[in-house]
Amino acid sequence: MTAVLTDLLAALGTGALRIVDLTHTLAPDFPNITLPPEVGQSRPFRMEEVSRYDERGGAWYWNNLSFGEHTGTHFDAPVHWVSGRDRPNGSCDTIPVGDFIAPACVIDCVADSARDADFLLTRGFLEAWEAEHGRIPAGSWVLMRTDWSKKTDPVAYQNFDAIGQHTPGPDPDCVRFLVEERDVIGFGTETIGTDAGQAAHFLPPYPCHYYMHGAGKYGLQCLANLDLLPPTGAVLIAAPLKILQGSGSPLRVLALVPTAGQRA
Amino acid sequence: MTAVLTDLLAALGTGALRIVDLTHTLAPDFPNITLPPEVGQSRPFRMEEVSRYDERGGAWYWNNLSFGEHTGTHFDAPVHWVSGRDRPNGSCDTIPVGDFIAPACVIDCVADSARDADFLLTRGFLEAWEAEHGRIPAGSWVLMRTDWSKKTDPVAYQNFDAIGQHTPGPDPDCVRFLVEERDVIGFGTETIGTDAGQAAHFLPPYPCHYYMHGAGKYGLQCLANLDLLPPTGAVLIAAPLKILQGSGSPLRVLALVPTAGQRA
Ligand SMILES: [Mn+2]
Ligand SMILES: [Mn+2]
Repeated sequence: MTAVLTDLLAALGTGALRIVDLTHTLAPDFPNITLPPEVGQSRPFRMEEVSRYDERGGAWYWNNLSFGEHTGTHFDAPVHWVSGRDRPNGSCDTIPVGDFIAPACVIDCVADSARDADFLLTRGFLEAWEAEHGRIPAGSWVLMRTDWSKKTDPVAYQNFDAIGQHTPGPDPDCVRFLVEERDVIGFGTETIGTDAGQAAHFLPPYPCHYYMHGAGKYGLQCLANLDLLPPTGAVLIAAPLKILQGSGSPLRVLALVPTAGQRA
Repeated sequence: MTAVLTDLLAALGTGALRIVDLTHTLAPDFPNITLPPEVGQSRPFRMEEVSRYDERGGAWYWNNLSFGEHTGTHFDAPVHWVSGRDRPNGSCDTIPVGDFIAPACVIDCVADSARDADFLLTRGFLEAWEAEHGRIPAGSWVLMRTDWSKKTDPVAYQNFDAIGQHTPGPDPDCVRFLVEERDVIGFGTETIGTDAGQAAHFLPPYPCHYYMHGAGKYGLQCLANLDLLPPTGAVLIAAPLKILQGSGSPLRVLALVPTAGQRA
């Protein structure tokens, strides 16, 4: 085995490198994306037992599943959005596999998001982050940490009122900065959607979907455990199911994280 | 970033390390597992378009999906089988994440499987392999390469006749050897199921499911591109969806493979 792989397995074996699971459990009670009734609806996650060591299959247990592509912790492909519809290699089955392993920058927006559920991440906020942690490298995931994943009450997680949904996200100028000036690989959030809850009213509407996917970049949503990641230094493994012309996919998102104080 | 991760990204960047996708495209025409009509049936993969930049959602395209847990290129968890029903951490949502990255041994059974669709991998075959390539390390995936994945005709891929299905797999003694004497992490095949097509008639029936899952080990099925892997030296990333009490899951299986002749 080549040295880089031997070293990787050794570091995992000694605990110098940990694997952190950024994935929520896919279950019927996980909050689903909510859209106005006049448009097509994404099916919530449902399981139906096929057999459980019983007369329907004595030696085995398994389930049938149904859900929308954008369910639970999931990946957004460029073709999900009209701005990315003509991107080459823009669907789950055609994205270059090299894009499935990439470093991550984690932006701590916890205090601001707790203060204001409509908190918007700005270019200025990122520039302040860069002054402390260094420039966001090209090809990185930028993950917006809000601790939203800790809201176990589905009503609080969705956070709707009469006006609509109130969840944090990036503002249009921030997204353009990440796409045009930092050439990131994609943007990830702990909420449902990479855009803020009120982003239908932005110009353009849903700027994170619009600009990211228009530039062939990806999204990750409903991430968990971002509080276990360092601001820089983690590597994400995020590979969607290879769905034919898939617009997105639930997936297992794993982070390789150096253990503080251990040599790796 | 710690050295092991810097080296990993650098090796991927230079091409010294390649990512090989071992996954078939998840599509309605991919062959589905076939069972007698008197037992519960695993649903084939189906997609239903929710919107495509049209009146059902002007700016976005997405699909609803339905399928059984054991569809396409997929993972078998210990609880899938009655022998593994009481294994701790035996379902897709409870398996330790450290098990999702592991080295692979690839056993070339192409010629034998072409000669005999009912070819059975034996302990003796593995011992001959070990004489050439070294002992199968504990914690390795053992992948049975048959080039079955190259059969693009679904009838030839399933290979049923009046007696039943004819596809290669391991014999019971071979499985016990891998579990008890080599302590592998799991067994992978290019066919539908980790067991041979005729394994219902073995003692015990479906020995690969019975012994592997009874020992808390995993399965991978419908793998592709095993011909692109070296006999040893590749590392597999195989992380199932985090399905609540899931018995298995379609997944993206990636192999990290050193490029011949390049330093990594
Ligand atoms: Mn989405
Ligand atoms: Mn299976």
